[in-house]
Amino acid sequence: MDHENGGRKPEVIAGGSDEPKTHKSRHSCMYWGILLLLRFLALSATVLATLIMSLNKESKTMVVATIGTNPIKATLVTKFQNTPAFVFFVIVTSIVSFHNLVMLLTELFGHKFGFKGIKLLAMTLLDMGAVVLLSGATGGAASIAQLGKNGNTHARWNKICDKFEKYCGRGSGALIAAFIGIILLLVLNVTSTIAIHKNTRSSSAH
Amino acid sequence: MDHENGGRKPEVIAGGSDEPKTHKSRHSCMYWGILLLLRFLALSATVLATLIMSLNKESKTMVVATIGTNPIKATLVTKFQNTPAFVFFVIVTSIVSFHNLVMLLTELFGHKFGFKGIKLLAMTLLDMGAVVLLSGATGGAASIAQLGKNGNTHARWNKICDKFEKYCGRGSGALIAAFIGIILLLVLNVTSTIAIHKNTRSSSAH
Repeated sequence: MDHENGGRKPEVIAGGSDEPKTHKSRHSCMYWGILLLLRFLALSATVLATLIMSLNKESKTMVVATIGTNPIKATLVTKFQNTPAFVFFVIVTSIVSFHNLVMLLTELFGHKFGFKGIKLLAMTLLDMGAVVLLSGATGGAASIAQLGKNGNTHARWNKICDKFEKYCGRGSGALIAAFIGIILLLVLNVTSTIAIHKNTRSSSAH
Repeated sequence: MDHENGGRKPEVIAGGSDEPKTHKSRHSCMYWGILLLLRFLALSATVLATLIMSLNKESKTMVVATIGTNPIKATLVTKFQNTPAFVFFVIVTSIVSFHNLVMLLTELFGHKFGFKGIKLLAMTLLDMGAVVLLSGATGGAASIAQLGKNGNTHARWNKICDKFEKYCGRGSGALIAAFIGIILLLVLNVTSTIAIHKNTRSSSAH
């Protein structure tokens, strides 16, 4: 692959070093591959978070009263749409998944378009927005999840996870996936910021 | 002020341009001043958010029952410590305030230490961590605030803001301050990433 146009790697190694070309491109290929892998994992994490949360629904039939020896049953359904924080979570994880997909495709096929240095900057800034959004949405969903798990006696909000165990388990899964997504996006963000910086230093060496 | 060592400005304008020095330093002084102002505003916003939330407490005496014509009163106290999301919010806004203070002092007196190019990178990465933390904490506090305001009939969590108006008003104030802090930190983050990138381009022009 042409190292002047391929993905993010040229930004890091395009420098004034006198190493042989084969050594250089092997290094840059590995770097590019790791970035692709990280991006793919981030995409998987956010897609997983979206899917788990958006399919989260549990119905439970409970005895709500007894008349004589006749139990009166009621079926309660809990779903993510009932909580605005979870709806926001699904919207944001969808957006971030789409963002990750576009970034992955850009890194794979970006060399077909002509943009080079500005591409890394744009990707870094978009990543920054994505991770801040995702962090806010995950924080919001997590505090509702904590409330569902432990309740809040001061506000007289009872826990519901003792009744809807599966719902809470799946919700936790979605949150863990989102947290992993945040960590991966942060790693990608740090990597690209360092890449821009290294580019500076190697350019200065010219 | 020596433009090789002062704050963030050298990173942006230290390039291969042939403009006269006075013109260059006037530009860079303005840029440095705007960054300082933004950082000061971000610091104020996060300190304000910490103070408002941590001093948030309301006690209310309510009639809980009547025996005959005798009203039975109870005094209820609501404070931020009762909600884990608000405690996390206060911890994070404190940390981010401290971060903003250190960054402000670094920008003011940073030229006394010797670190130059790596300083901008370190500040950018620290800012990134700060804004992601702040976003998560604000999202968490915001979803509890929304619950307090509207309640959630599905989970049988009643709203409490009809009883504790002042508490909710102050909580909203803290959230707004934190949101402003997020926006300002994002602006600072975008600015410094662009600064690193510009530095690249002007270095390349050598």
